Amino acid sequence: MTARFRGVRRRTLDLCAGLSAEDLQIQSMADASPGKWHLAHTSWFFEQFVLARDPAWKPRNEAWLYLFNSYYQSVGPMHARPQRGLLSRPSLDEVLAYRRYVDDAVGELLASHADAELTTLVELGLQHEQQHQELLLTDIKHAFWCNPLRPAYHAAPATEARAPVPLRFITGREGIVETGHDGEGFAFDNETPRHRELLHPHALANRLVTNAEYLAFVREGGYREPGLWLSDGWATVQREGWQHPLYWDDDLSREFTLAGMQALSPHAPVCHLSYYEADAFARWAGARLPTEAEWESAAGQVAVLGNLQETGRLHPAPAEPGDDMLQMYGDVWEWTASPYISYPGFHPLPGSLGEYNGKFMCGQWVLRGGSCATPRGHVRASYRNFFPPHARWQFSGLRLGQDR
Amino acid sequence: MTARFRGVRRRTLDLCAGLSAEDLQIQSMADASPGKWHLAHTSWFFEQFVLARDPAWKPRNEAWLYLFNSYYQSVGPMHARPQRGLLSRPSLDEVLAYRRYVDDAVGELLASHADAELTTLVELGLQHEQQHQELLLTDIKHAFWCNPLRPAYHAAPATEARAPVPLRFITGREGIVETGHDGEGFAFDNETPRHRELLHPHALANRLVTNAEYLAFVREGGYREPGLWLSDGWATVQREGWQHPLYWDDDLSREFTLAGMQALSPHAPVCHLSYYEADAFARWAGARLPTEAEWESAAGQVAVLGNLQETGRLHPAPAEPGDDMLQMYGDVWEWTASPYISYPGFHPLPGSLGEYNGKFMCGQWVLRGGSCATPRGHVRASYRNFFPPHARWQFSGLRLGQDR
Amino acid sequence: MTARFRGVRRRTLDLCAGLSAEDLQIQSMADASPGKWHLAHTSWFFEQFVLARDPAWKPRNEAWLYLFNSYYQSVGPMHARPQRGLLSRPSLDEVLAYRRYVDDAVGELLASHADAELTTLVELGLQHEQQHQELLLTDIKHAFWCNPLRPAYHAAPATEARAPVPLRFITGREGIVETGHDGEGFAFDNETPRHRELLHPHALANRLVTNAEYLAFVREGGYREPGLWLSDGWATVQREGWQHPLYWDDDLSREFTLAGMQALSPHAPVCHLSYYEADAFARWAGARLPTEAEWESAAGQVAVLGNLQETGRLHPAPAEPGDDMLQMYGDVWEWTASPYISYPGFHPLPGSLGEYNGKFMCGQWVLRGGSCATPRGHVRASYRNFFPPHARWQFSGLRLGQDR
Amino acid sequence: MTARFRGVRRRTLDLCAGLSAEDLQIQSMADASPGKWHLAHTSWFFEQFVLARDPAWKPRNEAWLYLFNSYYQSVGPMHARPQRGLLSRPSLDEVLAYRRYVDDAVGELLASHADAELTTLVELGLQHEQQHQELLLTDIKHAFWCNPLRPAYHAAPATEARAPVPLRFITGREGIVETGHDGEGFAFDNETPRHRELLHPHALANRLVTNAEYLAFVREGGYREPGLWLSDGWATVQREGWQHPLYWDDDLSREFTLAGMQALSPHAPVCHLSYYEADAFARWAGARLPTEAEWESAAGQVAVLGNLQETGRLHPAPAEPGDDMLQMYGDVWEWTASPYISYPGFHPLPGSLGEYNGKFMCGQWVLRGGSCATPRGHVRASYRNFFPPHARWQFSGLRLGQDR
Repeated sequence: MTARFRGVRRRTLDLCAGLSAEDLQIQSMADASPGKWHLAHTSWFFEQFVLARDPAWKPRNEAWLYLFNSYYQSVGPMHARPQRGLLSRPSLDEVLAYRRYVDDAVGELLASHADAELTTLVELGLQHEQQHQELLLTDIKHAFWCNPLRPAYHAAPATEARAPVPLRFITGREGIVETGHDGEGFAFDNETPRHRELLHPHALANRLVTNAEYLAFVREGGYREPGLWLSDGWATVQREGWQHPLYWDDDLSREFTLAGMQALSPHAPVCHLSYYEADAFARWAGARLPTEAEWESAAGQVAVLGNLQETGRLHPAPAEPGDDMLQMYGDVWEWTASPYISYPGFHPLPGSLGEYNGKFMCGQWVLRGGSCATPRGHVRASYRNFFPPHARWQFSGLRLGQDR
Repeated sequence: MTARFRGVRRRTLDLCAGLSAEDLQIQSMADASPGKWHLAHTSWFFEQFVLARDPAWKPRNEAWLYLFNSYYQSVGPMHARPQRGLLSRPSLDEVLAYRRYVDDAVGELLASHADAELTTLVELGLQHEQQHQELLLTDIKHAFWCNPLRPAYHAAPATEARAPVPLRFITGREGIVETGHDGEGFAFDNETPRHRELLHPHALANRLVTNAEYLAFVREGGYREPGLWLSDGWATVQREGWQHPLYWDDDLSREFTLAGMQALSPHAPVCHLSYYEADAFARWAGARLPTEAEWESAAGQVAVLGNLQETGRLHPAPAEPGDDMLQMYGDVWEWTASPYISYPGFHPLPGSLGEYNGKFMCGQWVLRGGSCATPRGHVRASYRNFFPPHARWQFSGLRLGQDR
Repeated sequence: MTARFRGVRRRTLDLCAGLSAEDLQIQSMADASPGKWHLAHTSWFFEQFVLARDPAWKPRNEAWLYLFNSYYQSVGPMHARPQRGLLSRPSLDEVLAYRRYVDDAVGELLASHADAELTTLVELGLQHEQQHQELLLTDIKHAFWCNPLRPAYHAAPATEARAPVPLRFITGREGIVETGHDGEGFAFDNETPRHRELLHPHALANRLVTNAEYLAFVREGGYREPGLWLSDGWATVQREGWQHPLYWDDDLSREFTLAGMQALSPHAPVCHLSYYEADAFARWAGARLPTEAEWESAAGQVAVLGNLQETGRLHPAPAEPGDDMLQMYGDVWEWTASPYISYPGFHPLPGSLGEYNGKFMCGQWVLRGGSCATPRGHVRASYRNFFPPHARWQFSGLRLGQDR
Repeated sequence: MTARFRGVRRRTLDLCAGLSAEDLQIQSMADASPGKWHLAHTSWFFEQFVLARDPAWKPRNEAWLYLFNSYYQSVGPMHARPQRGLLSRPSLDEVLAYRRYVDDAVGELLASHADAELTTLVELGLQHEQQHQELLLTDIKHAFWCNPLRPAYHAAPATEARAPVPLRFITGREGIVETGHDGEGFAFDNETPRHRELLHPHALANRLVTNAEYLAFVREGGYREPGLWLSDGWATVQREGWQHPLYWDDDLSREFTLAGMQALSPHAPVCHLSYYEADAFARWAGARLPTEAEWESAAGQVAVLGNLQETGRLHPAPAEPGDDMLQMYGDVWEWTASPYISYPGFHPLPGSLGEYNGKFMCGQWVLRGGSCATPRGHVRASYRNFFPPHARWQFSGLRLGQDR
């Protein structure tokens, strides 16, 4: 556990290697947070939920408990989210020292008192940190895109030209299936309890929808045809003037990536779609989005491998040929047809950690499978990510489903 | 069909009997519409979807097709919803003449060409009109509440004091059930197809939650405890300053009704709750909301009777004693734990009428059972009403559910 | 005084002759009020400030004191301005009865106790009522314009073709002049005290700017050239998408009038301009707006005659030939280069009536000369009207001025 | 000129000495700018208006012309003001290098081609830079105040206890006076032309209003009495919940300063008032604000000395005893009763620099006299500062005036 703890914590710092104190200061919208805040908040999480279990624990800095609490009402009030970018103090150096301080204290605890409860909490803290690793990447991407200079986070990785993989629909299981976390290894509370679901006859596409496919939708007027859209989606398209995915150039030939502006790769998965766009595309294509139970049933039969954060690509890549379900993990989070609600018999974690997932079960949709920014070992078949239907700054795309 | 057509259409006018042209002109919020607009729009619906099927049909007034279209993008553009209250022209008299004109033309058609397709469309138009009868009542209630004079829509109906019915939980069916419309009689497209659902072990309360029960929640600080609320709900409570249900007086002893300000009746169902409030109350009570499949399974075993519009009460009433599930129909729409999404295999109606229900399947929650403002004959076990989670101006309340 | 009182009060009703209860109910924006509210508020003014001086006076209806107070904080709270359009009760009939009630009571008072103080207060009430007569017209014009049917308030008045009057600049007085009300007849407090002003060398145009002249500004890109605009004006043009005066059709050939859509009359004064537009046009024309002191100095030499409300035209008309300053009164209110602030030594009226004018002396600009909607006898050389710089729904235009 | 150029430029850097790259990155509201942006923009000003006069000049970086343009529409488009805080690139180091680059180029030009036009433009650039020195201080003060840690910009300067100076009113000049810049030394275009103004009988207070005096206004309910306020001011008080000056603690005993939270000094000038508050206080005190001409007439008789930026205090200080008008320069900008409009015969500077002042002559009020953040040598009797009436983040206070 200690090695894993050190490794995950170090990984977060590694992701900031090319970023200056100024880069880590900025917050481009209320939904995103500054990198420095991610660095501090993930440490606060360990302080609040691991170290402060010791009644004798003295906080590093009382005020920081307030500044770096995200949304845990039951542990106290918190700094307003849209104002995180104004905290030039504490400085990056102070935050890095805070990280080391927390690392040392948790390390000591692991060395001396590693009971099951501690291990569980530390593991939760690491999973939490991995979520913030992904957010750190999506948030800096958005912030850099807001800068007319369109700076690059890293050098463009080498890519190989690949022939497109033909689209096939693969019939899924039907009838009652067990779904949700099966109890082995870590899972968030929202993946539980494991329970029975009834699958109706269906099939899922063997791979993700590509830029070339989505471009056809754009070119054939998909963004101008209200009949393809949910009512709220159409209102959003009109209000925001959407004409293509977030980060695409208006000329439809280039997109903003963590390596700066790059040519749109036709057979790479389309990315940075809202639920509204994924849903409209599926309708246009005569298909639908998979339900999360359908997706999970298929995903359970595939190894958890793919274009995840560790490839260093940090951008979705064309499918590699294969007969199975492809691209189930990594590349892009896949919007499902399932609103994010609790599983039958769900109970949040006890205490303040019960605020982690349950209170967000309204107005969001489930995404599955992880993305090119998700750390390896963090995602699994039962993993439920969730975002509001208009959100586009995550690495989000889609796979088609069908009734059978 | 002709008699039914005449009857439903007349009923709409009857509901306006005590309202002046000025009362029917006003629009108190974007979600509500003026009474005059309801009168015109329900006629437009017959003109657009019944009369205009005849290629030789000449519209009564071209401009009115624009003014009285609600949200059917595929038949043309429409007047902005928040501006419906500005249409002093056409006058109420012109709108009433328009109604007679449409009534005569549809009557003639029914007398001369009554094929199955026509009957189906007219029936849809009547069901649509019945929905607007309910909205007309909830909208004028809201508008009158915005007037500091708090005028009454009708004289207060006589009420009898009743002893409270003790709360009991009745175990529901478990396993695979058929759900959705069974094909007999009218249904909206969103109630189809009939399909299998898997019910988990559960029980439902024998009656609705009462004012007295909800008052305890209010008095014990329910509106001040974030841990009871969904995150979006808590944000709404804070932003709007909610401290009790809509229409309750701050002194918690009186509420605004269609008969003006009245004393709060302790054993009558609590009403004008948002989903957020219904959900928070259920959590506080150690229970949860029923799913729509659970509700439908229970409702299928009960006759469609209750305190509906025709009682003339237009306000929820205390339960009458009984051993069965009580108050399943009428009184208040019951918030369920189910987001409003499509049933497996759902297909919207063909053509423009496909915009009726399907495009709203995002961001809303299902309510079941009808209310004191719902016309008899309009509601049924499979009926799915839906509103966004913050909506409070409908007659909406809740029944508790439990895992077993 | 009694005859004048009856006459002005009757005139208000005459202006509503062609309007239905529905027309008088609607409020198209927060800046405008429903006709019914104008009818009630002007009566409230007499009740509050004339009748209620008698300590034994019993208000007609306590609640109405709240509903029909506009902005007099010192007499009590008031109904929120943007919600005036929701008051379907009291009905038009009740409001008309209220008017009669107030008329009778004031009439009786005038007959029995007509001391100087009473006469002064009644005269203030009548001047106030005349201001609301003009607002009633501008407000219903705006409301009707919001209706896609573009209804007409009255039949189009006959107009005669007139040759354009050539533009000339007439040199004004220079040096110290007396300005402000000279003490004869009625004046508002903001026209006092009469005081000395220093006029710098200048000249004023002999007539108002015409539609043809303004059209040249539009056609030559005036709305696309930021260098012509004040910074706030340019921001408004961009945000609101202004491309021409309010009420002009996008084809630049027609405009909405109280007689419905009409061809733009080239030599009639341009109308429904904001201060920003008047200022930008003047800059484009190599001129400037007159100061209010310059305007008043010129206006004092001209009879108070012109195209005022009583012509029944209710729209600005081309200048009639003449050697003097033309169109100084009537047609359109003329934006001046003077912010609306107090005169040196200004004291508001004592008591609540001190809220009439003084508290608005921030963020507004002075307009002079009355319009085609101003009643005869209401305007004078010293009269100071004022509106915020973005306001366009009044009959507002401009006359050019120059340094000499 | 070269020495002065070097000196002013260096002074800007000196003001940033205690600030980190993160501190210089943040923007706490749209009205404020990041320190880094101030550093870059002041250099851009020299590049755009001095260096780019040479047709052979190659911009340091084309994109920076866009990023660091503030509001000069005629030289090209500009980065959106509220997004200045998102520019983590260019880095502080790059901006500092840009400053050196511009300094060298301007220095070379001054050494080789110092004609009158160049000198005039460089002087304008330096005056511009001095304005941004003051803004840099007020902006970082606001940003630090938004941080719950309330960090200090500098160590608290030593202060000496001083007895209060009694308030006296000193009669001012009456009749026609010359006002505006007299042609000696630098002035902005808005101080010209020198022209005649008519002063009415008046007197001005011998010193600024103090914290103790303003505290009495607060304690006696000044913020709860609508009759003391302009209508827009009262609406702002209600909407924003103002109960005391910006930066005062709710306990009315402490205030936030550039040295962090400090006890309120009773005899120091009250500071960080809006025009609305200054105006309301004056009304409460039975006085009024001075006009700018009255102020200028008095200020012309006093040496330009006071608690300016160079004292290092960066906070207003109690008046030192004396018989003359005290505190005319420095301490706080004094709100006047004069809207910011052009002087008679005003012409903006030719070309793009004409956008400097003239286009803001709407909706703002004139402030006079400089503040504790204004550099020595920058302010003078004719200097006209201007801000909208709600602005509070400048060092702004008031001196009372009276009619005589």
